[in-house]
Amino acid sequence: MSITSLRAGIIGTGFIAPVHIEALRRLGVQVTAVCGSTANAQATADKWGIPEIYGNYDYRAMYASPNVDVVHITSPNKLHVEQALAALAAGKHVVCEKPLGMNAKETARVVKAAAKAKTVLAVNYNCRFFPAILQMRAAVQRGDLGRIIHVQGHFFQDWLLKDTDYNWRVLASEGGKLRAVGDIGTHWIDAVSFILGAQVESVFAKLETFHKRRKRPRGEVKTFAKVDPKTMVSYPVDTEDFASVLLRYDNGVHANAAISQVAAGWKCSLALGIYGSEASMRWDLQQPNEIYVGRRDEPNQILQRGTPGFLEDVAHFTDYPGGHPEGFPDSHKMHYRAIYEHIASGRKTPLLFATAPDGHHEVKICEAVLKSAAVGKWVTVS
Amino acid sequence: MSITSLRAGIIGTGFIAPVHIEALRRLGVQVTAVCGSTANAQATADKWGIPEIYGNYDYRAMYASPNVDVVHITSPNKLHVEQALAALAAGKHVVCEKPLGMNAKETARVVKAAAKAKTVLAVNYNCRFFPAILQMRAAVQRGDLGRIIHVQGHFFQDWLLKDTDYNWRVLASEGGKLRAVGDIGTHWIDAVSFILGAQVESVFAKLETFHKRRKRPRGEVKTFAKVDPKTMVSYPVDTEDFASVLLRYDNGVHANAAISQVAAGWKCSLALGIYGSEASMRWDLQQPNEIYVGRRDEPNQILQRGTPGFLEDVAHFTDYPGGHPEGFPDSHKMHYRAIYEHIASGRKTPLLFATAPDGHHEVKICEAVLKSAAVGKWVTVS
Amino acid sequence: MSITSLRAGIIGTGFIAPVHIEALRRLGVQVTAVCGSTANAQATADKWGIPEIYGNYDYRAMYASPNVDVVHITSPNKLHVEQALAALAAGKHVVCEKPLGMNAKETARVVKAAAKAKTVLAVNYNCRFFPAILQMRAAVQRGDLGRIIHVQGHFFQDWLLKDTDYNWRVLASEGGKLRAVGDIGTHWIDAVSFILGAQVESVFAKLETFHKRRKRPRGEVKTFAKVDPKTMVSYPVDTEDFASVLLRYDNGVHANAAISQVAAGWKCSLALGIYGSEASMRWDLQQPNEIYVGRRDEPNQILQRGTPGFLEDVAHFTDYPGGHPEGFPDSHKMHYRAIYEHIASGRKTPLLFATAPDGHHEVKICEAVLKSAAVGKWVTVS
Amino acid sequence: MSITSLRAGIIGTGFIAPVHIEALRRLGVQVTAVCGSTANAQATADKWGIPEIYGNYDYRAMYASPNVDVVHITSPNKLHVEQALAALAAGKHVVCEKPLGMNAKETARVVKAAAKAKTVLAVNYNCRFFPAILQMRAAVQRGDLGRIIHVQGHFFQDWLLKDTDYNWRVLASEGGKLRAVGDIGTHWIDAVSFILGAQVESVFAKLETFHKRRKRPRGEVKTFAKVDPKTMVSYPVDTEDFASVLLRYDNGVHANAAISQVAAGWKCSLALGIYGSEASMRWDLQQPNEIYVGRRDEPNQILQRGTPGFLEDVAHFTDYPGGHPEGFPDSHKMHYRAIYEHIASGRKTPLLFATAPDGHHEVKICEAVLKSAAVGKWVTVS
Ligand SMILES: NC(=O)C1=CN([C@@H]2O[C@H](COP(=O)(O)OP(=O)(O)OC[C@H]3O[C@@H](n4cnc5c(N)ncnc54)[C@H](O)[C@@H]3O)[C@@H](O)[C@H]2O)C=CC1
Ligand SMILES: NC(=O)C1=CN([C@@H]2O[C@H](COP(=O)(O)OP(=O)(O)OC[C@H]3O[C@@H](n4cnc5c(N)ncnc54)[C@H](O)[C@@H]3O)[C@@H](O)[C@H]2O)C=CC1
Ligand SMILES: NC(=O)C1=CN([C@@H]2O[C@H](COP(=O)(O)OP(=O)(O)OC[C@H]3O[C@@H](n4cnc5c(N)ncnc54)[C@H](O)[C@@H]3O)[C@@H](O)[C@H]2O)C=CC1
Ligand SMILES: NC(=O)C1=CN([C@@H]2O[C@H](COP(=O)(O)OP(=O)(O)OC[C@H]3O[C@@H](n4cnc5c(N)ncnc54)[C@H](O)[C@@H]3O)[C@@H](O)[C@H]2O)C=CC1
Repeated sequence: MSITSLRAGIIGTGFIAPVHIEALRRLGVQVTAVCGSTANAQATADKWGIPEIYGNYDYRAMYASPNVDVVHITSPNKLHVEQALAALAAGKHVVCEKPLGMNAKETARVVKAAAKAKTVLAVNYNCRFFPAILQMRAAVQRGDLGRIIHVQGHFFQDWLLKDTDYNWRVLASEGGKLRAVGDIGTHWIDAVSFILGAQVESVFAKLETFHKRRKRPRGEVKTFAKVDPKTMVSYPVDTEDFASVLLRYDNGVHANAAISQVAAGWKCSLALGIYGSEASMRWDLQQPNEIYVGRRDEPNQILQRGTPGFLEDVAHFTDYPGGHPEGFPDSHKMHYRAIYEHIASGRKTPLLFATAPDGHHEVKICEAVLKSAAVGKWVTVS
Repeated sequence: MSITSLRAGIIGTGFIAPVHIEALRRLGVQVTAVCGSTANAQATADKWGIPEIYGNYDYRAMYASPNVDVVHITSPNKLHVEQALAALAAGKHVVCEKPLGMNAKETARVVKAAAKAKTVLAVNYNCRFFPAILQMRAAVQRGDLGRIIHVQGHFFQDWLLKDTDYNWRVLASEGGKLRAVGDIGTHWIDAVSFILGAQVESVFAKLETFHKRRKRPRGEVKTFAKVDPKTMVSYPVDTEDFASVLLRYDNGVHANAAISQVAAGWKCSLALGIYGSEASMRWDLQQPNEIYVGRRDEPNQILQRGTPGFLEDVAHFTDYPGGHPEGFPDSHKMHYRAIYEHIASGRKTPLLFATAPDGHHEVKICEAVLKSAAVGKWVTVS
Repeated sequence: MSITSLRAGIIGTGFIAPVHIEALRRLGVQVTAVCGSTANAQATADKWGIPEIYGNYDYRAMYASPNVDVVHITSPNKLHVEQALAALAAGKHVVCEKPLGMNAKETARVVKAAAKAKTVLAVNYNCRFFPAILQMRAAVQRGDLGRIIHVQGHFFQDWLLKDTDYNWRVLASEGGKLRAVGDIGTHWIDAVSFILGAQVESVFAKLETFHKRRKRPRGEVKTFAKVDPKTMVSYPVDTEDFASVLLRYDNGVHANAAISQVAAGWKCSLALGIYGSEASMRWDLQQPNEIYVGRRDEPNQILQRGTPGFLEDVAHFTDYPGGHPEGFPDSHKMHYRAIYEHIASGRKTPLLFATAPDGHHEVKICEAVLKSAAVGKWVTVS
Repeated sequence: MSITSLRAGIIGTGFIAPVHIEALRRLGVQVTAVCGSTANAQATADKWGIPEIYGNYDYRAMYASPNVDVVHITSPNKLHVEQALAALAAGKHVVCEKPLGMNAKETARVVKAAAKAKTVLAVNYNCRFFPAILQMRAAVQRGDLGRIIHVQGHFFQDWLLKDTDYNWRVLASEGGKLRAVGDIGTHWIDAVSFILGAQVESVFAKLETFHKRRKRPRGEVKTFAKVDPKTMVSYPVDTEDFASVLLRYDNGVHANAAISQVAAGWKCSLALGIYGSEASMRWDLQQPNEIYVGRRDEPNQILQRGTPGFLEDVAHFTDYPGGHPEGFPDSHKMHYRAIYEHIASGRKTPLLFATAPDGHHEVKICEAVLKSAAVGKWVTVS
């Protein structure tokens, strides 16, 4: 089966939904349905020429369509589990946005359902599919870096710096109790785990809320949209603005991640350095086409996507030659290429994307992070 | 009319053709037809689910299809004029790859035909639609840089560094007498002209061919593809490997461009600096999301795509927020957005893309460059 | 009194000693004496034309010289306290290399002695005198960054990456029980404390030793010198190779420092980012002439040493104009300028350099770090 | 003989004079005399503790001192030849600032005198002694880059951007008819010639004066000093603000240099790229510790001063280990090390620094540049 015969239906029409739509269309996948508020679903359908529209957030109606093979869930976090379970039950493949759910109790249900299902469930940890991340993973596996010693990095943004910056993620009830770590920190942890081929065993964390109170507009707000401060109401903040997270991996590697959504000047910097006994590799999402290779007794290197050394390992997940930069949209494209080819091949291709157990493990890490911050000690991820 | 109701047909299936296809699909434009060698047209259609296939390079058959509104010409340079004229004659809109043609005599014919046509003809100088280039243009127009003093930069690649590197562009008969300058130098000149809102008046050039002889494989080769050296035959080279081009613009600005396809380490670096009496702006295609702003009496700045200051001017031509890098594919997407909206609006939107006269002027500059190199003097662009 | 009338005597002739000598000579300070092994003291004197030589490590003989006003102690850590106390007792001013001593018990004695002395004692935390650090301090004090939220950074080197890399610092008995944190981490902590104008209140630390055993040559080895592995003997390592240190400052600011001497590719990267509610500032010792200023609603900036904005605050501690890079040697020069002018002015100039209490506090932080790593909890710096 | 026994006398007390003084003192060379205006000579002597003072610009008096072995000429350009000839006549060694003189006629006299003299004459093209430049030279000689194809770069500053910026260099009568090219362009040309081991054979140039009139203060002004615009008088400008210079070397290499003193944001960027058939090397004075190595079929590299690969070639001309940045002052130190060791050794060490013929050749290149700009053609350097 070719991936062009697969048909996708999208839930949600906010910031990330169009990223899915575009990426799917680049791959030749058909986007046949969209579900959201009635007005937004219509507008989205118009913009991209999508034939089936499901308003009123009626995702179950969309699941009933015979023209949808794969469901993309891009709604806020608290809806993921319910929508994913229903999709699996309806016999659909699922690409669910991260995090997989609000707590480990509910995500455990998805793990169970996915294990029984005939269909594929993927969690949208798209960062794995930056070619640089795939390349670092290949380099670690092949031993290019020697024994891994430690990992360091950050995920820094500044879009929640001001107390007038609002998004549903700020509310524990909407996004989960852990905000900065849950929303962006888990991208960092997932990417590092993927590169190392290892799992987080225990964590130590320090969480801090800089703005104890914030102001918010009334009504729903699209991610990264601007709102007038004067129309706002004040509310207490129950999620963290920034964190330091120390991680111990099951292969003994120590990692240190600084996470912040109040780091002025950084827009979306997922930066990490993997330090090994033979070499190190550093990368930043904001300059995704280059890996900086650090060496002790030879010159450091700039590994450039699409050039020799890079290509062989990740050829299937990069389309543009060296010097022709790919970006954030391309990482989604490559992620869905992997997922859809996995589906189309009858699960024959290598399982590179994050599955239900991966998504579940991230949620468990978040719970351990919360506990560690509360008790001020290292906590084992159960 | 919405752009999703427009339907595109693609000529060519080489390196750049899929870039067009992907970009169109991201925009919701339908890609309904593809034309090339029978095998490649079929393969391309399969990969993206394109319904109509025109083999045997039979573009006239494609022009007869009622399901094609806009023709994208991505064949080698020597075919552009013939295919463009026929498309206009068939009442199609045209997006023609650069350069518009092999010499000013033939491109003059396109200018004439386009002027009479009811349809739109655009030349694919996509670099104009990197948001950074649009931003620099806006900044110059608004006077942010003060009076412009000089411009400096390069377009450096290394894919033709070895004498075994081959592509049809190396042959004057296929790509035109001017190679490095014609193929990539014109992107630089077009971008600078666009930013300045000025036209090149006279040029001085030094052209050099480092490899007087090269080796080539038998048969057709796709751009950036690798070939075994042992199967190759030797041939004399009749196009330049690198050049220095000095330009005088009609607003008095002096520009200096170094152009090379044999610059080891640079993959696709179109770099330029616009120096004004108040500030300068520098940019490199390889890091397309950032403009470096140079100032005398205040700190230099990094202008980042998708962040305040940048957004207002180019909002319509960038989709991803700051820190979520866009790349080379996105510049094509934005270019076609401008072209298709121009078509859909009945030519009401501002004319930002390169038209037939622009493409023709680039070819005249190339001819002046050749003449200047021959006589060792400044030459006026007629 | 002018600083050119002050005369310095140097203890030690290893890696850092010449850095002191050069810097003093640039300032017009006279270097009148050197003390070390007989051979090395002679060689050093010859190389720089230093008149008085004290062999056999006989620093007391040097202290008896009427031609020495200021003693520079550049011997290994375990000798600092003894040599500093004797110098104060001899009525000399002291510039003591960091750390001030091996443990807080002995450094407390120096604090007491310095408090009573008529002379000045400075600890060589030279990093304070990179103009960028002075500038960041000025910016924080003036409120340019708003309220400080968090601090993040690293001090990474790779000169102890291999198990055959040896230096006296690896031995707890010579350099102290804390190695990476004690040797380079304290530079980071001192610099951040200096910038913030705040003191570390409590710490959490994770320490790790990658090489449980290393090989060493017989006899003394100069820092950064190369030795043949075949002549080496194996020994167990009792100091850490790398660490994560979380700090709580007494003004509530959280800081996260990753410290490593086994980070391949980094030679001497003291990097830090100060994140405030209005802006952030980032800097790396390896590119010392530039501060990166991060902003939320305006473009980020590159503040360049020697250009407007930078100059006013730090003019007295930078000599070269913008674009003429200063480096590591210059930070020592500026440090000694501050110290010697303080001496020459009769202690009238502002006290910018690290004093005995500062050096003592760093040692107390180190002890808290050791304890925290042992118990896995936050530990208050007593 | 050791260099510490050599004694230097400095003419001039402006911007560059202290750079000489500091560098000499770092080397252990004695600075015994200074000559300038009476007030400034006194102030300079005070600041560095220099014993002999020659006021009233009376350099002949200084030449009569038995305590001066080497004369450093740091006066404005028009005085160089006269002061250098007199120094040679007085049996002194000479380190003369660049350019060697105002025109080839007068510099020819220095060449002749230097050839006959028993003493050494060096021209202060200090950029040769950035370790990176020495390293690039070694790499080219050893063939690391293969056959050299072309060279490209710029020397950009912005300190003369405003029409109120004044310095004696702006006046042809004081600094020479060629300003931007003469003052900074010759550093670029000398460095490239040194790296290539080749001489400029012919040139093409375009010179432009952006400010046809400027304003100047009354009286003498120190380089990089600020003056109040209100006290200024207007005058016509007879030297160029910026230029494009194309060069043909006697080994066939083509070079393209953009030179500007009105390039906003660049403070002192001497940037060059040497492109060869095997690799390229790029460097910028503003980041002097790193060379960027470009390669076609392997990753690009960052060669860092003081690390393996770098050290072997230039060990004698760098003192600080990798990661401990050296800067502009260090290039002067290294330059004088080479010159003074050449003197001390009785001219036995390799002749790396620029001599009278080199300085003379630079002046001839300048004259060819002027002529080329006037006639609009390539001009041979006679
Ligand atoms: N993988 C990645 O890089 C990213 C992932 N995300 C994830 O995507 C999800 C959505 O985030 P954004 O697009 O930023 O949020 P958003 O707030 O911009 O959009 C959310 C969308 O969900 C819709 N929605 C609300 N209630 C719904 C319901 N009951 N049924 C269906 N749709 C409903 C809203 O109308 C809106 O269109 C989140 O889970 C987030 O964590 C977001 C950004 C990046
Ligand atoms: N705007 C940009 O950034 C770029 C523009 N280009 C332009 O695109 C054009 C194609 O370049 P590449 O894709 O690199 O070359 P390519 O050699 O990879 O592809 C050329 C395609 O044209 C087809 N073709 C050959 N003869 C034909 C005919 N008679 N009728 C129809 N198709 C025919 C070939 O089969 C091949 O599929 C050139 O004009 C080039 O200048 C290429 C690369 C980038
Ligand atoms: N502020 C900074 O940036 C730096 C500070 N340092 C500090 O400087 C000190 C020396 O470090 P390095 O120069 O790297 O070590 P090194 O091992 O290269 O030199 C130490 C010197 O001390 C001498 N020495 C040994 N025993 C002595 C004694 N009993 N009396 C007098 N001298 C004796 C040795 O002969 C040798 O010349 C250390 O405390 C270190 O922490 C070192 C490097 C950088
Ligand atoms: N190698 C390098 O990197 C640099 C070289 N230079 C060169 O150094 C020379 C001086 O330049 P700056 O220091 O920038 O100029 P400046 O104007 O700051 O200083 C010139 C000095 O010469 C003195 N002077 C004037 N007339 C004199 C006379 N008759 N006898 C003796 N001294 C006299 C002035 O009093 C002043 O102290 C120039 O030739 C310039 O090209 C300047 C800067 C950098």
